[in-house]
Amino acid sequence: MADRVRITGARITPVAFVDPPLLNTVGVHQPYALRAIIRLDTDAGVTGLGETYADTAHLARLEAAAEAIVGQDVFALNTIRASISEKLGGDRTGDSTGLAGMITSASVVDRVFSPFEVACLDVQGRVAGRPVSDLLGGAVRDAVPFSAYLFYKWAAHPGTEPDGWGQALHPDEIVAQARRIIDEYGFTAIKLKGGVLPPEEEVAAIEALHAAFPTHPLRLDPNAAWTPETSVKVATGLAGILEYLEDPTPGLEGMAEVARQAPMPLATNMCVVAFDQLAPAVAQDSVRVVLSDHHYWGGLQRSRLLAGICDTFGLGLSMHSNSHLGISLAAMVHLAAATPNLTYACDTHWPWKTEEVVEDGVLRFVDGSVPVPTGPGLGVEIDEDRLAALHEQYLRCRIRERDDTGYMRSIDPGFQALSPRW
Amino acid sequence: MADRVRITGARITPVAFVDPPLLNTVGVHQPYALRAIIRLDTDAGVTGLGETYADTAHLARLEAAAEAIVGQDVFALNTIRASISEKLGGDRTGDSTGLAGMITSASVVDRVFSPFEVACLDVQGRVAGRPVSDLLGGAVRDAVPFSAYLFYKWAAHPGTEPDGWGQALHPDEIVAQARRIIDEYGFTAIKLKGGVLPPEEEVAAIEALHAAFPTHPLRLDPNAAWTPETSVKVATGLAGILEYLEDPTPGLEGMAEVARQAPMPLATNMCVVAFDQLAPAVAQDSVRVVLSDHHYWGGLQRSRLLAGICDTFGLGLSMHSNSHLGISLAAMVHLAAATPNLTYACDTHWPWKTEEVVEDGVLRFVDGSVPVPTGPGLGVEIDEDRLAALHEQYLRCRIRERDDTGYMRSIDPGFQALSPRW
Repeated sequence: MADRVRITGARITPVAFVDPPLLNTVGVHQPYALRAIIRLDTDAGVTGLGETYADTAHLARLEAAAEAIVGQDVFALNTIRASISEKLGGDRTGDSTGLAGMITSASVVDRVFSPFEVACLDVQGRVAGRPVSDLLGGAVRDAVPFSAYLFYKWAAHPGTEPDGWGQALHPDEIVAQARRIIDEYGFTAIKLKGGVLPPEEEVAAIEALHAAFPTHPLRLDPNAAWTPETSVKVATGLAGILEYLEDPTPGLEGMAEVARQAPMPLATNMCVVAFDQLAPAVAQDSVRVVLSDHHYWGGLQRSRLLAGICDTFGLGLSMHSNSHLGISLAAMVHLAAATPNLTYACDTHWPWKTEEVVEDGVLRFVDGSVPVPTGPGLGVEIDEDRLAALHEQYLRCRIRERDDTGYMRSIDPGFQALSPRW
Repeated sequence: MADRVRITGARITPVAFVDPPLLNTVGVHQPYALRAIIRLDTDAGVTGLGETYADTAHLARLEAAAEAIVGQDVFALNTIRASISEKLGGDRTGDSTGLAGMITSASVVDRVFSPFEVACLDVQGRVAGRPVSDLLGGAVRDAVPFSAYLFYKWAAHPGTEPDGWGQALHPDEIVAQARRIIDEYGFTAIKLKGGVLPPEEEVAAIEALHAAFPTHPLRLDPNAAWTPETSVKVATGLAGILEYLEDPTPGLEGMAEVARQAPMPLATNMCVVAFDQLAPAVAQDSVRVVLSDHHYWGGLQRSRLLAGICDTFGLGLSMHSNSHLGISLAAMVHLAAATPNLTYACDTHWPWKTEEVVEDGVLRFVDGSVPVPTGPGLGVEIDEDRLAALHEQYLRCRIRERDDTGYMRSIDPGFQALSPRW
């Protein structure tokens, strides 16, 4: 048989990239978003790429995991995951690392394993001369549709010049934001991050979007800002307008209560974020759509498992995004392309991202979709200068945790992250 | 990227191998068991192997499927399955092809897709120089434990000389059969195919086995021969003796009724044999252990999905077997080796099989386990002379359907396949 391709080590590089003041129910995006870039080196001289969160606690776990898997074969994904699980030992309580406190129950093992799994698949693909999508059952679509991700936002981070996007707090500003993003990227679906303004104002924004883009499927995601009563009221008011309503209220029980009365499907990336939440969610019929995210579902193969579970239990499947860079976009595209039942346009923070670590040329949006890279592995390559620059930026920016709430409170000391808020 | 490896055609060869008169609740094994051997040819000059049922209706579907996938890349498994599904069109009602009428609700698409998927993975592995287990996440064990599969049997097929095993109808004959099989193979778990004799006689056989092999986990599988009442009575009587009780009674509701009262886990390869049966089985808590079988669960990747679903929903996982040859044994071993939560010893009909289509040397039993083949792909090669001989035997034997009931009625015209029988 072919020689094994053994891991010789991982270079884990935290980076920071500028992020606009995007608002959500727990606060506001800090001036920089953090990511960790993983270069997984092997004795075959082939390096695989991965990308994940970069909060300090997560970085420490990544370093521990990297040490635990040295010497292992990149095809031995079962064993690599077991080694990481063993290395983390009892350190597996859910926390909110990298997720702004909004997702607290994801599996620590799956979050730490994920970027290494992606990097191993990248190596496998490079060695075999095959795109990662081929290692996931093969692409069933040539390009993956994404949605326009709209945010309420300030014109600028306090004390800085306005960014190019300007303020978006009123329905007409949200419509203008949508128009610009759609003109530029061609997205055919629209998601509004809500939970920022009183529900009636967000309903008005959705209605304005519906008037302006009558054929675009619309989604609203208040990140569990509402009580079940408020959720039902909003859902009822937006009947026939929303494709799905995302996480209106906290918890599987609250979601189940809303689901029984809402006229549209409920979706989640908050109350079903780990495998142990699927059985209770199915039993209570809490949601109709699960947003996958390979960063906390344990990589691409386990995201395929999630997809298969959704297919088996009659749940729809969409895809969640945090602020991310090109390695993760490539991974998301390969996964989505090879997942037949991923029938919703995926989320991406791409419109808000202006800096990058990978070389130009492979990832691009065409009519709202990203063509699936066809080169070996993920198909993207590190731009060493860009990586060095964003690492420098990480060192300079002094942000070490994602903390939307703390940043908001530094600006508005009276702010409280309430869930539900209304 | 590397050249695609395109399917140029499939050579589908029905074979027949001698099978002893093994009894079950629907009848008795015919003198020959049928299998179809698939050689999937590619433009890379590499051929992949698959093995499945060979009943006439199934053979016709295999031929149609083979035609539908010519020109496709062996990595394009999603597309290959979709092509087969489309080709079969409305021809997807469950039937009992190859399964003696005991499994009637498996997915036709998954059953037809399975041997092609295995063959594609064999080609992938051969091209990449990797064992198939590496394409499934990597082996987590070097050898896969199997169980001793005991059968009530006659001394001979009517009109022929006794086979080497002799009659097994009484508890002491069953114990003698177990001793011989365990001496020869080293199995560390024991399964008795029941549903043949009145329940109290089968209980006596299990008790005799327990006395003779006090440390071997024991299983009893009457193939839904009992009412829920009988099932509960047997289960209660065998408390502390059976590792699990397999399919005591028909249907998800009956199984759920028994499960509520049985002291040991209930297992199934009859009421949960397709993905659409998982949700109702989970909702009713009908079983605690699912026996996977890649031949009707849609191949090795979809069997991994089943494994992940079992892990997610708290179900145990074991592995079912029909009479099979070496290609399927190799596939079962690769799959089981790469499935961490497959913690029960797998079933195999190996002790009863005396003829073969693959070359000697790779597959062997050591202390009841089969070492995982380490060569590229499945690791087994066709022995052309053996294949030709068993195909000749197929042509001569005139058996074209597996029909345990019909064969039994040709001997005992009053026989009826009743479920439940007691």
